[in-house]
Amino acid sequence: PETPAGVAAQPAGADTSYQNLLVSTQDQITTITLNRPEKKNAITVEMYTEIIQALDQASKDDSVITVITGSGDFYCSGNDLSNFTKIPEGGVEQMARSAADLLRDYVKAYIDFPKPLIGVINGPAVGISVTVLSLFDVVYATERATFHTPFSNLGQSPEGCSSYTFPKIMGAAKASEMLLFNKKLTAMEACQVGLVTEVFPDSSFHKEVWSRLKSYAKLPKNSLAYSKQLIRAAEKERLHAVNNQEVERLVERWLSDECMQAVMSFFQGKAKL
Amino acid sequence: PETPAGVAAQPAGADTSYQNLLVSTQDQITTITLNRPEKKNAITVEMYTEIIQALDQASKDDSVITVITGSGDFYCSGNDLSNFTKIPEGGVEQMARSAADLLRDYVKAYIDFPKPLIGVINGPAVGISVTVLSLFDVVYATERATFHTPFSNLGQSPEGCSSYTFPKIMGAAKASEMLLFNKKLTAMEACQVGLVTEVFPDSSFHKEVWSRLKSYAKLPKNSLAYSKQLIRAAEKERLHAVNNQEVERLVERWLSDECMQAVMSFFQGKAKL
Amino acid sequence: PETPAGVAAQPAGADTSYQNLLVSTQDQITTITLNRPEKKNAITVEMYTEIIQALDQASKDDSVITVITGSGDFYCSGNDLSNFTKIPEGGVEQMARSAADLLRDYVKAYIDFPKPLIGVINGPAVGISVTVLSLFDVVYATERATFHTPFSNLGQSPEGCSSYTFPKIMGAAKASEMLLFNKKLTAMEACQVGLVTEVFPDSSFHKEVWSRLKSYAKLPKNSLAYSKQLIRAAEKERLHAVNNQEVERLVERWLSDECMQAVMSFFQGKAKL
Repeated sequence: PETPAGVAAQPAGADTSYQNLLVSTQDQITTITLNRPEKKNAITVEMYTEIIQALDQASKDDSVITVITGSGDFYCSGNDLSNFTKIPEGGVEQMARSAADLLRDYVKAYIDFPKPLIGVINGPAVGISVTVLSLFDVVYATERATFHTPFSNLGQSPEGCSSYTFPKIMGAAKASEMLLFNKKLTAMEACQVGLVTEVFPDSSFHKEVWSRLKSYAKLPKNSLAYSKQLIRAAEKERLHAVNNQEVERLVERWLSDECMQAVMSFFQGKAKL
Repeated sequence: PETPAGVAAQPAGADTSYQNLLVSTQDQITTITLNRPEKKNAITVEMYTEIIQALDQASKDDSVITVITGSGDFYCSGNDLSNFTKIPEGGVEQMARSAADLLRDYVKAYIDFPKPLIGVINGPAVGISVTVLSLFDVVYATERATFHTPFSNLGQSPEGCSSYTFPKIMGAAKASEMLLFNKKLTAMEACQVGLVTEVFPDSSFHKEVWSRLKSYAKLPKNSLAYSKQLIRAAEKERLHAVNNQEVERLVERWLSDECMQAVMSFFQGKAKL
Repeated sequence: PETPAGVAAQPAGADTSYQNLLVSTQDQITTITLNRPEKKNAITVEMYTEIIQALDQASKDDSVITVITGSGDFYCSGNDLSNFTKIPEGGVEQMARSAADLLRDYVKAYIDFPKPLIGVINGPAVGISVTVLSLFDVVYATERATFHTPFSNLGQSPEGCSSYTFPKIMGAAKASEMLLFNKKLTAMEACQVGLVTEVFPDSSFHKEVWSRLKSYAKLPKNSLAYSKQLIRAAEKERLHAVNNQEVERLVERWLSDECMQAVMSFFQGKAKL
């Protein structure tokens, strides 16, 4: 027979200990902080899993809005390229397949997130930490932030739904300069093209942004969640399809000579992003 | 046998008298003026019906373009919240269902409008008068205009297809700040994000805009109508689906405790938009 | 039996001589130059066919990126209106049908182009040379460039997928002013709305742009092509459908009294674009 213990209570965010994240809930706001500042918050395989878990918990807790930010001077330097150097027993094919499954689930967690998700971009952002911003609802950035997606430099291709969302947000002419030709945007440029909601002076960034966030978290909770879901509903199916296509293309890329040589050059210090 | 009288002529716009609108046709332009300036042109139940009727007539008359503007200093303060205080015999459920049917038909009239529709925004715009602007073809605004959609303040959710059109026009990061977090845009901000075509100094607003409109109305009529329909065709089906989803969500919102309390607080002067 | 000669090698770009184009490949870049400067590079029936052929060759050659530019002070003055004056034996219906088939194939060549396609806009651009820019990946323009789509002036309607892409890029309010009401954009305005990637001073235009293009052409070739195809895939089917609808509308327009009179007025010097 079922035991009461079988219906485990949802563990509170504070109870879970993460290795590379700080997660806390205060003033109706759950904040997920990327906390690997010595590596510019580069995302390891373990961190992808932790962020998926933290988003899942935030989606179910009592908070009204969820915030993602970074500790230290960087927001996030993107995928930790050392992820590519741990070849499992199954060889590179198995590594590529595992990485693909993880990436798909990671992006899926953003597509399906049911509450307002707000990015507090405290410094430079690279790669997948930039592309998934297009799946956030609001993005506030310090003037020190930059936005860089150097996929082709590494023989790779866009992810995080950016092949669909970036042209939608800024038009193909500006999206392709970022996604194909590695153009790095300043915070102001990112704001002008619509990737960022507003840019703040670095000196007042945290004070101004958190003052706003606290007022947002006092708004009617269901109204916010349902409104966000209404906006997302119009393209959710499309986003999942794009995510799948991007991941399949990356599997091909990761196993290609072009990509292997580009990543190797990077590690040998021959290539600069 | 059919009688000639059975094929009634379409009544001319000038023949119809409206309670809260001024409607006239001159220089091939039909102009619909919201005319309840003592209430900042807030839209009552009767006015929704009148605007639907005026758009229907404008769609069939001989004019080349149709203009909507407001009388007085405001363009439109949005839905008249007193619409929520007249509870019919059938109770709040019946009120919500009637309001939903009316709202759906109102937005549908904009989606299906077959000629160029131009907004001449003579002052502040609020709520549904802002959202449906995304279904206009061109929007000219005085520098005094502002654009405000405080849905979550009232426990409600976006309508007028804005959950789809606003992210399409300005990207999700800026759209969500308006639609979820009640950000009020200046005319210049609305122009920068693409909701407004161009902003004019208040002193020359009417002169400059009407000079343009008169030249537009001399262009080939069918070319304009067919071109507008071509642009609209690419997303018409989607717009109708979004309209339906938004209206269904609003029915749920209107009957929710969150919304009822928020609207009550507004009437008691406790809440400010 | 098949002869080896039956499997003809793809002719190299340099081997083909074009009447109105210069086509060359250097530094991994294939450049197609519209070369009818005495007519502001207006596109004749023969030029449409030549451009389709040049794009087909560029898609198959070894180049990494493809560039389109114009010779002389103009980029391109659009469709050569003298195309409308050569009435074939079959009459205007046959002319309209032939023109429609050619236009559909022309736009299709841009939709399906598999590599990064970059516009180097050396001066004013008109009509179809503007609309198809929305199917390019990156568009660099001199400050002298302008962008003008005077369709309704000539009783016509949008093509080049602009009825879909322009509202997507800049929002309906700005797109309709261009597509319905003949608004001519400066290079800076075109950049602000996202039709153009970046604008350069005329004095340094070629130097700065070609320096970038040469660095782009050194990036991993497959990574660029697959990334571009990933971006395009999300809307390819839609673009083909829009192309078909636009072309069918133009057939109706070309045979309409409105269009015939507008074009006649143009040739008699009564109309100015």
